[in-house]
Amino acid sequence: MEPYNGDWMRKYRGHCKLVLKPASTEEVSKILKYCNDNLLAVVPQGGNTGLVGGSVPVFDEIVISTGRMNKIRSFDEVSGVLVVDSGVVLEVADQFLAEKGYLFPLDLGAKGSCQIGGNVSTNAGGLRLLRYGSLHGTVLGLQAVLPDGTIIDDLCTLRKNNTGYDLKQLFIGGEGTIGMITAVSIQCPQRPKAVNVAFLGADSFEKIQLAFREAKAQLSEILSAFELMDSYSQDMVHRVRQNKRPLDGEYPFYCLIETSGSNSEHDAEKLEKFLEDVMSKDIIADGVLAQDETQIKSLWSQREGITECVGHFGGTYKYDVSIPLKDLYRLVDETRERIEAAGLKGDTDEFPVVEVVGYGHMGDCNLHLNVAVRRYDKRVEEVLEPFVYEWIGKINGSISAEHGIGIAKKQYLGFSRNNTMIDLMKQIKKLYDPLPKRRLSSVPFYKTHPFKAEENPPLFAQKMDTNALDTAEVDKLNENDKAELRQFLQNENQKARVQNTVHSLTDMCFRKCITSTIKNGKLEKNEESCMANCTERFFDVGNLTVKQLQNMRQS
Amino acid sequence: MEPYNGDWMRKYRGHCKLVLKPASTEEVSKILKYCNDNLLAVVPQGGNTGLVGGSVPVFDEIVISTGRMNKIRSFDEVSGVLVVDSGVVLEVADQFLAEKGYLFPLDLGAKGSCQIGGNVSTNAGGLRLLRYGSLHGTVLGLQAVLPDGTIIDDLCTLRKNNTGYDLKQLFIGGEGTIGMITAVSIQCPQRPKAVNVAFLGADSFEKIQLAFREAKAQLSEILSAFELMDSYSQDMVHRVRQNKRPLDGEYPFYCLIETSGSNSEHDAEKLEKFLEDVMSKDIIADGVLAQDETQIKSLWSQREGITECVGHFGGTYKYDVSIPLKDLYRLVDETRERIEAAGLKGDTDEFPVVEVVGYGHMGDCNLHLNVAVRRYDKRVEEVLEPFVYEWIGKINGSISAEHGIGIAKKQYLGFSRNNTMIDLMKQIKKLYDPLPKRRLSSVPFYKTHPFKAEENPPLFAQKMDTNALDTAEVDKLNENDKAELRQFLQNENQKARVQNTVHSLTDMCFRKCITSTIKNGKLEKNEESCMANCTERFFDVGNLTVKQLQNMRQS
Repeated sequence: MEPYNGDWMRKYRGHCKLVLKPASTEEVSKILKYCNDNLLAVVPQGGNTGLVGGSVPVFDEIVISTGRMNKIRSFDEVSGVLVVDSGVVLEVADQFLAEKGYLFPLDLGAKGSCQIGGNVSTNAGGLRLLRYGSLHGTVLGLQAVLPDGTIIDDLCTLRKNNTGYDLKQLFIGGEGTIGMITAVSIQCPQRPKAVNVAFLGADSFEKIQLAFREAKAQLSEILSAFELMDSYSQDMVHRVRQNKRPLDGEYPFYCLIETSGSNSEHDAEKLEKFLEDVMSKDIIADGVLAQDETQIKSLWSQREGITECVGHFGGTYKYDVSIPLKDLYRLVDETRERIEAAGLKGDTDEFPVVEVVGYGHMGDCNLHLNVAVRRYDKRVEEVLEPFVYEWIGKINGSISAEHGIGIAKKQYLGFSRNNTMIDLMKQIKKLYDPLPKRRLSSVPFYKTHPFKAEENPPLFAQKMDTNALDTAEVDKLNENDKAELRQFLQNENQKARVQNTVHSLTDMCFRKCITSTIKNGKLEKNEESCMANCTERFFDVGNLTVKQLQNMRQS
Repeated sequence: MEPYNGDWMRKYRGHCKLVLKPASTEEVSKILKYCNDNLLAVVPQGGNTGLVGGSVPVFDEIVISTGRMNKIRSFDEVSGVLVVDSGVVLEVADQFLAEKGYLFPLDLGAKGSCQIGGNVSTNAGGLRLLRYGSLHGTVLGLQAVLPDGTIIDDLCTLRKNNTGYDLKQLFIGGEGTIGMITAVSIQCPQRPKAVNVAFLGADSFEKIQLAFREAKAQLSEILSAFELMDSYSQDMVHRVRQNKRPLDGEYPFYCLIETSGSNSEHDAEKLEKFLEDVMSKDIIADGVLAQDETQIKSLWSQREGITECVGHFGGTYKYDVSIPLKDLYRLVDETRERIEAAGLKGDTDEFPVVEVVGYGHMGDCNLHLNVAVRRYDKRVEEVLEPFVYEWIGKINGSISAEHGIGIAKKQYLGFSRNNTMIDLMKQIKKLYDPLPKRRLSSVPFYKTHPFKAEENPPLFAQKMDTNALDTAEVDKLNENDKAELRQFLQNENQKARVQNTVHSLTDMCFRKCITSTIKNGKLEKNEESCMANCTERFFDVGNLTVKQLQNMRQS
């Protein structure tokens, strides 16, 4: 049961006791209908490689694993349209396509275990978005099951289909909160025959931007990646690996450029010409072009090794954000300044922070801001948050470029979305998973609901008060006195309820969440977030009960 | 007022007496709020180049023209993200981008007058979808106004933004039925420096499919168009224009292949190699490669001239559909057989049909089935419909590839979408444009609503019946008799209402719709569709009245 209850970062942990593994859309439908009718909480789970706690149970939800729905349903070798079950592993699909000369239009580090249903639910971005675009453009159709068991059969295999609202788009990036994807049809491009890689150094972020512009202009249709790395990130890689640096000199910024095309000679010629051009114009200070597959891998590992090397010293605070290009790197500088001003960064053990580094998919305006630490420290956290989110909010950036909201960023959504947008999203959630039966703790998809629970009016109270007054004694009073008593009882009830709630919450959630050996007086970080979730859930359970009582009274 | 009341095909006509031209999103918001509060019908209108009657008033709706919202708001030369008002003409935007070395990722025949807001609302496909993908992938953000005046400000300029449901997608292809788009941000690709065109002939549709597959494999990243033409369509062009054919021989199928890239020499080399390959493998029987800009235009006109030449003889029945590639052409053959079997096709004037031709964007599985006629004829129509739509429904095709639903295909939606999907769409419509105030004749966006009006329960009746029974005489009856009388009155009322409705409808709609000089006893085609629309509207007005009465009773 263990692998289903935790995520690979060991950040989120649930206590699920039942994992269901349906083999078909129909079985998923039956399961969801049953759980919905019986108010059982579920959480859909694919490869469980997410980074925001979206696929892990929080308490004891039933896990619905897509692992057995792993068939490649069809592939059209002329149109390039692939239809797969949601549980097909990304790499399996890509290897299948490789044999046909095609490519899955999404590639990411976790491809060996992540599943396509989860990729689509998260709207995963990955390494080749610059070239092949987002899943909103490449996914042609979906099969999904709504919380009440309704099967949505929109497994279109046509590129053009303008017949009404494109509802499948809501499930792409919907994080399983309004339905569980069971199959996907997707447009796949030709697999490129030639891949070339260059690694360049530049004297400023402005020059890297110029290089990006020139790369787009000159490499145009063959450009498949433009990755940014700052000197701090490359110093970390060097410090940990002690390897030879790709370039002789050191520069404040580096970029990795990849081209993919159908003709190796043509592509090499274009890339060489581009390099000559940007170096002669003094945009790029130095550069190197991979001569073979080994060198390509070695250059890529300067970029892909950052995550591991940054985490080498103890831990990492990670932010995956989108920022308009011209301001992209400023966040890293300002964060570093704040950390330094707070006296938290240094070379010796007394300082929690080792370094603040920036890198990412520059071609997609996607920055990874990483703070390498020797240990997790409340003071560092306080310098970072809400600062980072506020900064992004001000500049109209995105607090989640490709990872999604999940549990991790639920409370920060307002920094990237205005209230109107959040209200509209709540409407959609409510439409597919309506109150009062759902949006509650013991109900499908709640867990990954990206919005905070709404406080409902205390309907429960009204019922109790009315009952309390339905006694013979009260009947003797005159109408004014009755009204006064009613009001008094209501107020008393309200107070008592608040006190009771606080007691119950403290008691119950403490037992649920504080599971570690208690070393000091402070709460662990995960205990804090568990408490927050627990509190929300408790209120939802209350609302559910009230609604049920209401229904009973009415019927 | 005339240009706002009709479409360019002269197929749809309204009687609008007021055109409003807001200059900003805020003004649109104020207008929609006012119209909504006062139950005034509106229809948003862009360049009015649509093909399904989606932007023309049906009766006397107020036209809200986007013509004055025509500012290019911003362009980021590094990221390639363009932000424009919805009223910017497509060609104006593209020319602006050309100066910066960029390209608008959508191109279509009407680019000189169509507007970007309308393009996005229709989810226009066009000539280069094969290369640059659909607007669902390239549009990064939107500003739109909901029927009640709420402004949706989601004008994101970032490629990656996974923060909740991607609601803007509902407005892309939503045909203005749930909101009016006022601004768009879009990711623009580099403008290709080199364009090459080849024109090929093949012996069968199977061979054309093989050629398409080879083109994708060998031309891969530079392939920008793969257009199909059958011999019938090329014969029509030759018959009308009397021009020299591009190839010496004649073949059952032709295709036009266009490549766009950053290096003219490389592209020419790839294309030549491809041609050698497909000819040596006997996939292609003959082919020609354009040597200069004039030849490129001349080859394109063999494809683009079809519409005009097919219409030359009198008129055309047009179908814009998506069909899985292997079955794409079968529809043309079977339609021709049906027309021939019905004895409707021939070379002399007594036969209404001249020819049945097929062509289209093969790269997108998008077929244009055209029936060239000497005159519009009910018998031809009866052979074509619902046959064509049923055929497409059976094969899981799309009855509207790129034109949308509008008024034209409202009644055929069920051939491409199952009931579950249609119900879900209705839910969304209702969410943004709720009953009872909207979805009614005199209310925003109704006109372009792609679904049939729902029959509401006759609430009006209940009210009347209750009143009728509230008399002293009735009080004298016993309970059983009262119930019986109540039922009797209800039944009578129901019958009377049906008769009244039929009378009113016939009378009112006849006066509204039958505007032509009456030459014979048969209805004109446009009069028929007007009557259908009028009937639907009448029921909606009835529902509105009922709801208003109910509100009055309740308040």
